[in-house]
Amino acid sequence: MNSGLLGNHFITQIGIVVNDIEKTSQAYADFFGVNKPDTIITDTVDIAQTEYRGNSSVARAKLAFFNMGSLQLELIEPDLHPSTWREYLDEHGEGPHHIAFVVEGMKEKITLLEGKQMQLLQKGEYTGGRYAYMDTFKELKVIVELLENDK
Amino acid sequence: MNSGLLGNHFITQIGIVVNDIEKTSQAYADFFGVNKPDTIITDTVDIAQTEYRGNSSVARAKLAFFNMGSLQLELIEPDLHPSTWREYLDEHGEGPHHIAFVVEGMKEKITLLEGKQMQLLQKGEYTGGRYAYMDTFKELKVIVELLENDK
Repeated sequence: MNSGLLGNHFITQIGIVVNDIEKTSQAYADFFGVNKPDTIITDTVDIAQTEYRGNSSVARAKLAFFNMGSLQLELIEPDLHPSTWREYLDEHGEGPHHIAFVVEGMKEKITLLEGKQMQLLQKGEYTGGRYAYMDTFKELKVIVELLENDK
Repeated sequence: MNSGLLGNHFITQIGIVVNDIEKTSQAYADFFGVNKPDTIITDTVDIAQTEYRGNSSVARAKLAFFNMGSLQLELIEPDLHPSTWREYLDEHGEGPHHIAFVVEGMKEKITLLEGKQMQLLQKGEYTGGRYAYMDTFKELKVIVELLENDK
């Protein structure tokens, strides 16, 4: 298989930005007949090392995850600090924000995409891994998130 | 498993509306290292029996499909006639339009959702099955498409 820029083309997650995660999470739970998942909150900047457009950001978000087949649906309610989530919500309103892919070699993938004029929008750490949102919107009409999980 | 309103919660497809399907399809092919798929066009109204907001519509769209793991990514370039695709493109710009689920008993599912104040936006026939877009945007922040395939 020609693996393209990411090394795979398996969408692992769709992320949707929302204004009220408790309300939308309950709506999904009701619609799909599943339990409403716990809402979590991303780590503080000292742990998450969040960077948005090259600058450290204290932005955090509330998250809820639904498993929809082989795919995870993520609801995201951002706070008011600068982030790709807040920017997208302010510019586009509520709705799908990204599709995510698991990659190996995060730094190399970011460098590769930046060489194709797809800039790093935001990155950060989470327990067990790290993420990067790439500005692929012009080419792909959606933001691509890279996820790298520790072995 | 409590099956919810649809009978399942396996996302089978993400649909993205675009202005130039040839350009965006080539961008996806390059990005993911796959061949650019053929672009098809939906059937004329006499075959597709397209209805948009309760009225027959001659709207058609160019479509291209990419298989991304267990999920299909659909690119949609609508014409200028009334459709949910054109409406969404005009109101939101390019980007994700729907997530799709395979159902059994299309009429019953539509009736069930309409009873929950989620209205039928558009429906039509394709070779081997039929589709319905439901206005779930208020609740789920995305349009849900129902797909029923003939056995």
